[in-house]
Amino acid sequence: MDTETETLINGERLKPNQGLPSNSADGAIIYDSSHFQLRSRDRHVSYGSINGAVPLLENNREPEMPGRQSVTFRRLPPEMLTTLSSQFESLDYEPWESRVFKEENSRKTPSSLTKQGVIRWVVVFFIGVCTALIACTIDICVVEITKLKYGFLKKYIDKCVTENCLYIPYLQWLGISCGFAFIASLLVTYGEPVAAGSGIPLVKCYLNGINVHRLHRLKTLFVKAAGVTCSVLGGLAVGKEGPMVHSGAAVAAGLSQGKSTSLGFDFGILKEFRCDQEKRDFVTGGAAAGVAAAFGAPIGGVLFSLEEGSSFWNQNMTWRIFFCSMVSAFTLNVVLSAYHGQIGQLAYDGLLNFGKFPDIPFALLELPIFIGMGIIGGLIGALFNQMNYHISVFRRRFILSRWAKVLEVIVVCSVTVTTGFVMIYCVNDCKPLGAKDDIDFPIQMFCEDGQFNAVAAMWLQTPEASVRALFHDQPGTHNPLSVGLFFITYVFLACWTYGLSISSGIFIPALLSGAAWGRLVGLGLYRLTEGAAWADPGKYALIGAASQLGGIARVTLSLAVILIETTGNLSLGLGLMLTLLTAKLVGDCFNAGIYDMNVQLAGLPMLPWSSPPLCYGTEARDIMSKPVVVLREVERVSTILSVLEETPHQGFPLIFEDRFASPQGKQNSFGMLRGLILRSQLKILLKEKAFCTSPTGGTSQTPVPLETFRMYYPRYPTFQGMHFTEEERSSYLDLRPYLNPTPYTVPMHASLPRTFQLFRALGLRHLIVTDDNNEVVGMITRKTLARYRARICCGTIDFVELPLGGHGVQL
Amino acid sequence: MDTETETLINGERLKPNQGLPSNSADGAIIYDSSHFQLRSRDRHVSYGSINGAVPLLENNREPEMPGRQSVTFRRLPPEMLTTLSSQFESLDYEPWESRVFKEENSRKTPSSLTKQGVIRWVVVFFIGVCTALIACTIDICVVEITKLKYGFLKKYIDKCVTENCLYIPYLQWLGISCGFAFIASLLVTYGEPVAAGSGIPLVKCYLNGINVHRLHRLKTLFVKAAGVTCSVLGGLAVGKEGPMVHSGAAVAAGLSQGKSTSLGFDFGILKEFRCDQEKRDFVTGGAAAGVAAAFGAPIGGVLFSLEEGSSFWNQNMTWRIFFCSMVSAFTLNVVLSAYHGQIGQLAYDGLLNFGKFPDIPFALLELPIFIGMGIIGGLIGALFNQMNYHISVFRRRFILSRWAKVLEVIVVCSVTVTTGFVMIYCVNDCKPLGAKDDIDFPIQMFCEDGQFNAVAAMWLQTPEASVRALFHDQPGTHNPLSVGLFFITYVFLACWTYGLSISSGIFIPALLSGAAWGRLVGLGLYRLTEGAAWADPGKYALIGAASQLGGIARVTLSLAVILIETTGNLSLGLGLMLTLLTAKLVGDCFNAGIYDMNVQLAGLPMLPWSSPPLCYGTEARDIMSKPVVVLREVERVSTILSVLEETPHQGFPLIFEDRFASPQGKQNSFGMLRGLILRSQLKILLKEKAFCTSPTGGTSQTPVPLETFRMYYPRYPTFQGMHFTEEERSSYLDLRPYLNPTPYTVPMHASLPRTFQLFRALGLRHLIVTDDNNEVVGMITRKTLARYRARICCGTIDFVELPLGGHGVQL
Repeated sequence: MDTETETLINGERLKPNQGLPSNSADGAIIYDSSHFQLRSRDRHVSYGSINGAVPLLENNREPEMPGRQSVTFRRLPPEMLTTLSSQFESLDYEPWESRVFKEENSRKTPSSLTKQGVIRWVVVFFIGVCTALIACTIDICVVEITKLKYGFLKKYIDKCVTENCLYIPYLQWLGISCGFAFIASLLVTYGEPVAAGSGIPLVKCYLNGINVHRLHRLKTLFVKAAGVTCSVLGGLAVGKEGPMVHSGAAVAAGLSQGKSTSLGFDFGILKEFRCDQEKRDFVTGGAAAGVAAAFGAPIGGVLFSLEEGSSFWNQNMTWRIFFCSMVSAFTLNVVLSAYHGQIGQLAYDGLLNFGKFPDIPFALLELPIFIGMGIIGGLIGALFNQMNYHISVFRRRFILSRWAKVLEVIVVCSVTVTTGFVMIYCVNDCKPLGAKDDIDFPIQMFCEDGQFNAVAAMWLQTPEASVRALFHDQPGTHNPLSVGLFFITYVFLACWTYGLSISSGIFIPALLSGAAWGRLVGLGLYRLTEGAAWADPGKYALIGAASQLGGIARVTLSLAVILIETTGNLSLGLGLMLTLLTAKLVGDCFNAGIYDMNVQLAGLPMLPWSSPPLCYGTEARDIMSKPVVVLREVERVSTILSVLEETPHQGFPLIFEDRFASPQGKQNSFGMLRGLILRSQLKILLKEKAFCTSPTGGTSQTPVPLETFRMYYPRYPTFQGMHFTEEERSSYLDLRPYLNPTPYTVPMHASLPRTFQLFRALGLRHLIVTDDNNEVVGMITRKTLARYRARICCGTIDFVELPLGGHGVQL
Repeated sequence: MDTETETLINGERLKPNQGLPSNSADGAIIYDSSHFQLRSRDRHVSYGSINGAVPLLENNREPEMPGRQSVTFRRLPPEMLTTLSSQFESLDYEPWESRVFKEENSRKTPSSLTKQGVIRWVVVFFIGVCTALIACTIDICVVEITKLKYGFLKKYIDKCVTENCLYIPYLQWLGISCGFAFIASLLVTYGEPVAAGSGIPLVKCYLNGINVHRLHRLKTLFVKAAGVTCSVLGGLAVGKEGPMVHSGAAVAAGLSQGKSTSLGFDFGILKEFRCDQEKRDFVTGGAAAGVAAAFGAPIGGVLFSLEEGSSFWNQNMTWRIFFCSMVSAFTLNVVLSAYHGQIGQLAYDGLLNFGKFPDIPFALLELPIFIGMGIIGGLIGALFNQMNYHISVFRRRFILSRWAKVLEVIVVCSVTVTTGFVMIYCVNDCKPLGAKDDIDFPIQMFCEDGQFNAVAAMWLQTPEASVRALFHDQPGTHNPLSVGLFFITYVFLACWTYGLSISSGIFIPALLSGAAWGRLVGLGLYRLTEGAAWADPGKYALIGAASQLGGIARVTLSLAVILIETTGNLSLGLGLMLTLLTAKLVGDCFNAGIYDMNVQLAGLPMLPWSSPPLCYGTEARDIMSKPVVVLREVERVSTILSVLEETPHQGFPLIFEDRFASPQGKQNSFGMLRGLILRSQLKILLKEKAFCTSPTGGTSQTPVPLETFRMYYPRYPTFQGMHFTEEERSSYLDLRPYLNPTPYTVPMHASLPRTFQLFRALGLRHLIVTDDNNEVVGMITRKTLARYRARICCGTIDFVELPLGGHGVQL
């Protein structure tokens, strides 16, 4: 019996601590825990070592392949943009094929499967409807309150222009805007910081497989929706489309679980969807619905979700996502049509409706112009991102306290209002009234009677309306000088605004500033060609907008489709695509896209699209983390407790007890692989006290059912409040019913690309590295793989290894 | 030395044949080859056994998991619709990470990567252009010759109606049509039988990973393009859209290789794209371009290719596919616009342009009607498929000789023409001339002056024009009786026609017959509601067309998007989707879609979307093929020759020589896994005579470079013309530089769903089943997995195991 107190960690049968009485084995952890440290910068020990006994893997391995040329990854120093945070864990996308799972599965009947399938469709339907309703609510609130705000201001401006009291409307404007900005900022800063920004990067990360905490809570949803409404009402240079995508994702996560942990109620339904895999599938649909509602682009929504979310194509899921998108677009259309008094007309395809472009004459010779505009957009975008990066770094260093964040929002808001007011005051761009009749509040300012100030028209409306105006106004409507001035000021304001502690999207600011310079190009061409039919400034405004968006966000395919759907013009599709691609290529030569930069700044270990190129010489054993903390199939409770307390790992390979003593392979490995168990499962088993007294395991015991595991999802028990008696500590936990007996493994000689592909294509969380005898030699996780990057530009490749930092042990 | 003549097959070291002199070891194969037989119906031996020594795997395995409930798969008897053909092999989608590959890879520079990337885009550009040009050529030929044909006929009909000699235009019509049908049939039957039918099922199979022979040859492309032109000109109930997709795929496969084996020339360029993986990526783009050209749906094209082709999402590849689609749609637009005299107008989005639907009033209460129509479409579609199945089975049994196939085409063509003529003669549906002016050949027949025969208008134009007419004509244009009669005759003709030995698509016939009954429903609603605005017969014709297509083809998501794009109406999208989904669900209760039925009839081992449900109790060892034919790393030439001659396998696991003799695991396994080698590689190595004399392998020898392997791609050497001297036969082949050292493996206890997912997500060809010691115990290939199916309908699941038949050893 005494030999059973030996601890099997790191592949060494450690000598039991002879001096201690056997009943105190729990208190006295028999390995020296002081040796345990997370040497995060040593790439071979990043997975942690408990007793420091690093196996001599390098000395006794397979003969080296002749001519193997491993790429040298340049290790980057830890700094703001490059450090991956270790606190983010992956989602479990694979079904956990334990014995309890299989038993539950074998009890399922075809009719229960059908029922579950039907429920999925019903849930998806409601996700679509709710997402659309939230989007409608935000939109209608913004439109109505904006009308009130600018109507009020117009009254005072009109009055004060004659009475020479313009400081009054200025102060009113300042007050109203800062008031809303203050609320927006308070909500995010003090309410839910994860609701800051666009939300698209975080949703992308979630779909990529990263478990971002608090992302889908009810509170987050509320803060996001109310926050973005206030930000837009505050007149800041922000859009509301990104937050709508986040809202859709949060709605999906909430509705699909049939409970709200925040509010503390549980409908007791949809219990079978309480796992990462199902939840992520629903969130995929919710994000698509958000895109469909925000941009009126259901196909783009599907592509967005698939592109970011799907490891591989699942036809049924894709149909559901598509249905969700369609329902969302349809609901929005019904509600908005009714709101605009056209019940049943279905005239409002989406919130960001650019207005249909009629058949635009479009000649082949324009393609080079589009490419040229793509280059400009790429350059401006790269500059924008670089500035925003420096601002973000500044913020991270110096704007740390909550009140400072709120104050910054107020400052930005004041500057925005002041800039707008000064421009309206100084630039006297007068146009005759009635030339276009969709301006809500034509302000005369110093213009003659029957004219209005065109600059004021740009500032005193929602950014969406300004984009539409730049796209569709007649060639003579805008003065090049005022458009140019507007572009410069707006692009700086947008750059400063993005990253503030408010809910804010970058889509609309990018499109608006792009449309401004695009229109300038179009006006130039229009004058050069003396009004040729193809030199339509509106079309060039669209190309400029696409180019700017491509340069800033480095839009992916789905965003290209969204733009094409939003403009409703397929002929221009090729032009848009060329522009977007050029802008992306040019921008990528300088820095990353703004979303990727956000992800990197947050240290999120998002897996890129593909493994670094030319890395076939780098093998799994070069990048894997080791030593590995392993457990036995039937393990002593005290050992499990110690391991959980002293290591941050989320998954533990289990090894065969009896094969462990075999002399061969001992030196190199941590034992023969038996399965894998997760930290969360161990915690639940400890909480449930599913212990047995025999070290061979209790086969007669009824295992903890899967329902219990689902009950705890997604907030697993913590050790606070868990107490174990001495007896419990010295008893055993039989892990065999719960372990995944066939976890994914990779041979240690497998190349980095092959490892990467396996990990990414299957959406894995843990990949165990084995040697030729199927013994555990290392572990590869998302953070391992995410560290190895290649930056390709201008014919050179820079191979880098990102540092890992900010370890936080989550219990 | 003598012991080296031992053969290592099936995990047993066989005793050398002592009586033979060592120099005749080649002639006398030392295992008893008479034992070798492919017991295809025994599921455990489907991979073949050479010496019949089946390891005692079942007796000595891991302890059974308590409560494991393996699903019982009902073994189907071999019959036409259920037997999988064993002659189709998979494509190699994974890069073959051998030492020679890695060495070549490590010699690559970033600039060579960039160059390769640029070349890919250029190739993709030309694929798009060429696909569009071929589509244009087909279309213009069809339109022009149709004009001549029907113009000619109109002249004689008009003349003969008065002169009472209508048999003359009938015979003329018959003669012209049968002439074209005869050419169409000759081309396919005697030219290239693989060009028969739509091509979409075969392209889907290729993208799924099946190596369909002769699918992408130049000859196939020519026969397909010329054949479909003749079929349509023959007035048969066929469409030209499916063949265009196939043409796009063939163009891509041809252009991307830089050589034509058919014509025997080699430009010597694009050599790096000569492998299955690269070729398949290009074909994905080509198929998308084909869809874009045929339907004017670039996004639908991308989705089509991704849905069928991509194991997982690759952003770069997706961009290229999208670009290819866009270029194709754009080129087609430019050419067709120029052809129609509107140079630079870009007014022709695609060949199958249904004509834009303007904003159709569309009420929520119509959704139930759409669902009802979906049910009707599903029922009609199921009936259609069932009839077509029986016709196909009849054809397979009785219409075997080539001339019989040609004769059948002539018969069908005659019946089609006669039916059309009789209908025109008998049904006197007169409409005033000028009500619509897009009829090319209004035929008066027995109508009064100033009127034309509406039935004749339906028959004497291309099917595409008829679809447009049914969608867009005013409510009063068509007589319900004649539309109903047209529907019934056309649906039967289409059913008989599909599957003939001609190039023919099913898309247009399905849409046309669906539009006919849909319009009837619309006309009924129009009369019931006394002309309500929403009861637009054109809209219902569209819904009917979608429903019929959904019922026949069980359209997938991409086809839904294609329909939405083609109609250019997003509002109706939800309606279309509901209809399509309903039709699919209803139809699936009765039989498979027509494309799937084609695939099954051809015995193609296409992998379904997901593994059968509820199968977590079934493990890899239950389905794997064994025994496995294994080779050593350095193997005797005579052994390799024998193995290649006597087994049909395409991949051979390699085992460690030295570990083979180890006592443990011997009983259960075929040896410890060292790597995998392909039959094609062995054949090339034999052809190149890369032999060495030492059984330990020649390390000093320069290995055969990868370029040599590419040179042979895709038609590998055969044994005809290969001669080996006695000395060569007794020498050795060192396989170590060419083997894949880390092939994908799966533990034998892994569940069927997990195995399936691994295989499908990574696009594998061979999956080696290993035991806990990493020793080879079995093999899983596409054909293994494709055999296990589940048919779900009406709350029950039927688990079936398809038989495997028609083994053909390909050398």
